[in-house]
Amino acid sequence: MMDETIAQFQQYEYLDQRLAAYSASDYYPFHMPGHKRAAFPFCNPYKMDITEIEGFDNLHHAEGILQNLQIRLQQLYKSKKAYCLINGSTCGILSAIGSLAQQGDQVLISRNCHKSVYHAVKLFKLKVNYVYPSFVNHAIQGSIDPADVEQAFANIPSIRFVVITSPTYEGIVSDIKTISAIAHKYHAYMIVDEAHGAHFLFSDFFPKSAIEQGADYIIQSLHKTLPCFTQSAALHVGSDRIDCKKIEEMLAIFQTSSPSYLLMSGIDQCMRLLKEHGKQLFADYQKRLEEFYKQCSKLNYLHVLQKKDYEKDDKINQIPDLDPSKIVIGTWNTNLNGYELYWKLLNEYHLQLELYSANYVLAMTSIMDTDQGFQRLLKALFEIENSFCNIKVNNEKDNEKHSLCNFLKRTYAVREKVLDLADVGDSFQDTLRNECKGRICAEFIYLYPPGIPMIVPGEVITQEFIDLLEECTYLGLRVEGTKDSSYQKIRTVVTK
Amino acid sequence: MMDETIAQFQQYEYLDQRLAAYSASDYYPFHMPGHKRAAFPFCNPYKMDITEIEGFDNLHHAEGILQNLQIRLQQLYKSKKAYCLINGSTCGILSAIGSLAQQGDQVLISRNCHKSVYHAVKLFKLKVNYVYPSFVNHAIQGSIDPADVEQAFANIPSIRFVVITSPTYEGIVSDIKTISAIAHKYHAYMIVDEAHGAHFLFSDFFPKSAIEQGADYIIQSLHKTLPCFTQSAALHVGSDRIDCKKIEEMLAIFQTSSPSYLLMSGIDQCMRLLKEHGKQLFADYQKRLEEFYKQCSKLNYLHVLQKKDYEKDDKINQIPDLDPSKIVIGTWNTNLNGYELYWKLLNEYHLQLELYSANYVLAMTSIMDTDQGFQRLLKALFEIENSFCNIKVNNEKDNEKHSLCNFLKRTYAVREKVLDLADVGDSFQDTLRNECKGRICAEFIYLYPPGIPMIVPGEVITQEFIDLLEECTYLGLRVEGTKDSSYQKIRTVVTK
Repeated sequence: MMDETIAQFQQYEYLDQRLAAYSASDYYPFHMPGHKRAAFPFCNPYKMDITEIEGFDNLHHAEGILQNLQIRLQQLYKSKKAYCLINGSTCGILSAIGSLAQQGDQVLISRNCHKSVYHAVKLFKLKVNYVYPSFVNHAIQGSIDPADVEQAFANIPSIRFVVITSPTYEGIVSDIKTISAIAHKYHAYMIVDEAHGAHFLFSDFFPKSAIEQGADYIIQSLHKTLPCFTQSAALHVGSDRIDCKKIEEMLAIFQTSSPSYLLMSGIDQCMRLLKEHGKQLFADYQKRLEEFYKQCSKLNYLHVLQKKDYEKDDKINQIPDLDPSKIVIGTWNTNLNGYELYWKLLNEYHLQLELYSANYVLAMTSIMDTDQGFQRLLKALFEIENSFCNIKVNNEKDNEKHSLCNFLKRTYAVREKVLDLADVGDSFQDTLRNECKGRICAEFIYLYPPGIPMIVPGEVITQEFIDLLEECTYLGLRVEGTKDSSYQKIRTVVTK
Repeated sequence: MMDETIAQFQQYEYLDQRLAAYSASDYYPFHMPGHKRAAFPFCNPYKMDITEIEGFDNLHHAEGILQNLQIRLQQLYKSKKAYCLINGSTCGILSAIGSLAQQGDQVLISRNCHKSVYHAVKLFKLKVNYVYPSFVNHAIQGSIDPADVEQAFANIPSIRFVVITSPTYEGIVSDIKTISAIAHKYHAYMIVDEAHGAHFLFSDFFPKSAIEQGADYIIQSLHKTLPCFTQSAALHVGSDRIDCKKIEEMLAIFQTSSPSYLLMSGIDQCMRLLKEHGKQLFADYQKRLEEFYKQCSKLNYLHVLQKKDYEKDDKINQIPDLDPSKIVIGTWNTNLNGYELYWKLLNEYHLQLELYSANYVLAMTSIMDTDQGFQRLLKALFEIENSFCNIKVNNEKDNEKHSLCNFLKRTYAVREKVLDLADVGDSFQDTLRNECKGRICAEFIYLYPPGIPMIVPGEVITQEFIDLLEECTYLGLRVEGTKDSSYQKIRTVVTK
């Protein structure tokens, strides 16, 4: 199925040529980056790309124009201090964690954290504890319950910091205010991976940013939901409890000593746009989203998630706040799975979505999306529904629906930890998948996207987990992280 | 003095606008990046900037167009395996070191390594040993003597790897073949920071690349000496002794999970240019350099370094190979210091050089430099010589010359190590500079550029070192690394 689209561009062997061809096509981007390939005024990039020459400051020792850019960023977001990142949110996460923790420190992270959080735990040899998100609606990972955080601190009061991903990829926001207060009560720090929430501050239509909720560090990808180049991000200091010298030391480690002026000038251009025209752009965007959601409620089988869906769900303690910029389209009432809907939208409608999961697809939107883009998506969803989903799902289908939900719950289930992530060591063997039962996993295995680990090094591989990998293949989901790229073998710990 | 140039662009408050203004000016770039702001064909960058959508692969799991790009890179450089880097050579250094070492391992690095090597030593808690470059000519840091490496292994046979910077900023190349053989004899690995040598392979006019000299890892900045965007680099595996799974794991840690397609397509464009037109471009470039050096030998007082200058120097054991792309212009026979010559070239001739040191300035060149550029530099040097250096330096001046040489030798002198870098810990105080004598330094202090440490955490601050900082101010050199940006205070270790 996937070949139709790819074949069209495969004649272009070189990346720059393929990108140019793609850019000239009619494919519509319901994915990152948030500039949506709009042609902002920009010189030929080679003309703009310099190094730290006179008059252009030095990111790692900013005191001129780059320092002013960081001050503009800080003022716009009303944080205590802001840093431009040119190695993505990844380097912000590594730096924030590295600035707070010492080898052997106990830390608490939400299990659905980005892999960079796990990398930092391993790099700095920390003792990791998890808090698990609830499953909401049709097995989408939900918010973190503050009660679980309180319980974790009651068990281990020495926890040094908490990391929560909020919003999630799907736009689910946790109660950062309450969780921050709990962390601070125990003299711990609060880090929020707000990679998907850099747009929150610009309109009341979106949830509140963690910057306003008492978090100490807030990391935002500027490219994900704002019109900014891929790889550009920001780290905000949200409290007076932070030693800025320490974070600057870390940022100098995890970011190249030759930062790109293209990426940095993209940040400046974006900040100027938001400052000068943000209010109007976000008002227009809100109207488009409201109209889109209104039209979507007329869909009979495909289900576009809205906040009221969570409010109906009486199985969860905590109704999460929801970012309406993320359009989650559920297939659970249809005879399509996520993979099938995604490829149908791509091949037949030239709509490139951000990701598919077992039973939903995700469209990312931003202020740069057009009326025409939303119309194309709406038209596609109604046509697909009419031609493929015109029979009300029967019991058999209902079972499959439950089975996909069940699949997702099993994917992100609690696993038995035998070794601490940092203690897994370097004694490995590559074991055939079917012979792994009972062994200790030595690698991260995750679905990509979203890149949330299904299993973490040091955890036990069960038969159920082995079966899961089989199901992933069946559902067209991309498993990554295994050293064997076909994941026929899993790297396991050799115990002495 | 510096205000004239800067003032011209300071009216542009925003980075993108200032860059555009600069780009339209007549300032000529004798600095990185190697594309020299030539307007290669490139779409509006916002049109080209995407994420990991269908048909465009995933750098961290490359199997399509990005894998092909990496294969092209590998084939062009005749290495065993090549990786595109989008977080500069910095992430290549961190990854190479992280892939080879375990906490507590003994390692050997040349003292003039880039700060990323020191960062890796600290991050991975390694035991660091130094090999010091000789001083050649007028106190320029020279090559590493293989005999010193052999001696280090004789003392500590368990050394896990060696890191050598070759070429240096000034273009001095060490005998990597011999040093690699020594390392391998002791079952150690050889990492070469060849950040400034990505152009070596394309012409016999330049020294041999470490890729051909038996090194295990070779890290090259593509933007420094080739026409490629700032922040793009490559890591080459040079031997069969490397576990590629391990290095891939590290690269996934130190590079953003959202790599920039702009940077990657710049790499592809550069590789295509070199493959298709490299021979001619390098032949033309060689002619320009040869003509330039020929003309420069007619200078009476300003001295442009050439290989024969090193051959005359009988105080050094090892005559280093030299990269002629780096134009080192010595002021030691004149009444100017490096700072003064640098600003004269900038303000009066609009020639922006890469750096100044106490008694020389450095111009970086590449295949993209023009006849006109070289002519402008020549004309400027002759004019400056005629108007300012028309009196043969007298004995007094001669003393100053020796004093500047002496200054550089003292800058990079061997310092007494009390604590291992990784053991410095977190117990600090900020001490007034003049009260630091005898205290243990807790921070890196270096001149920027080139960013080579004058002192490393764990080493003793002497009165001579305190005096040095004073001299730096006097010479207009930029001291960085101190948490106190005016370096009036130095962070020192609080011992119990």
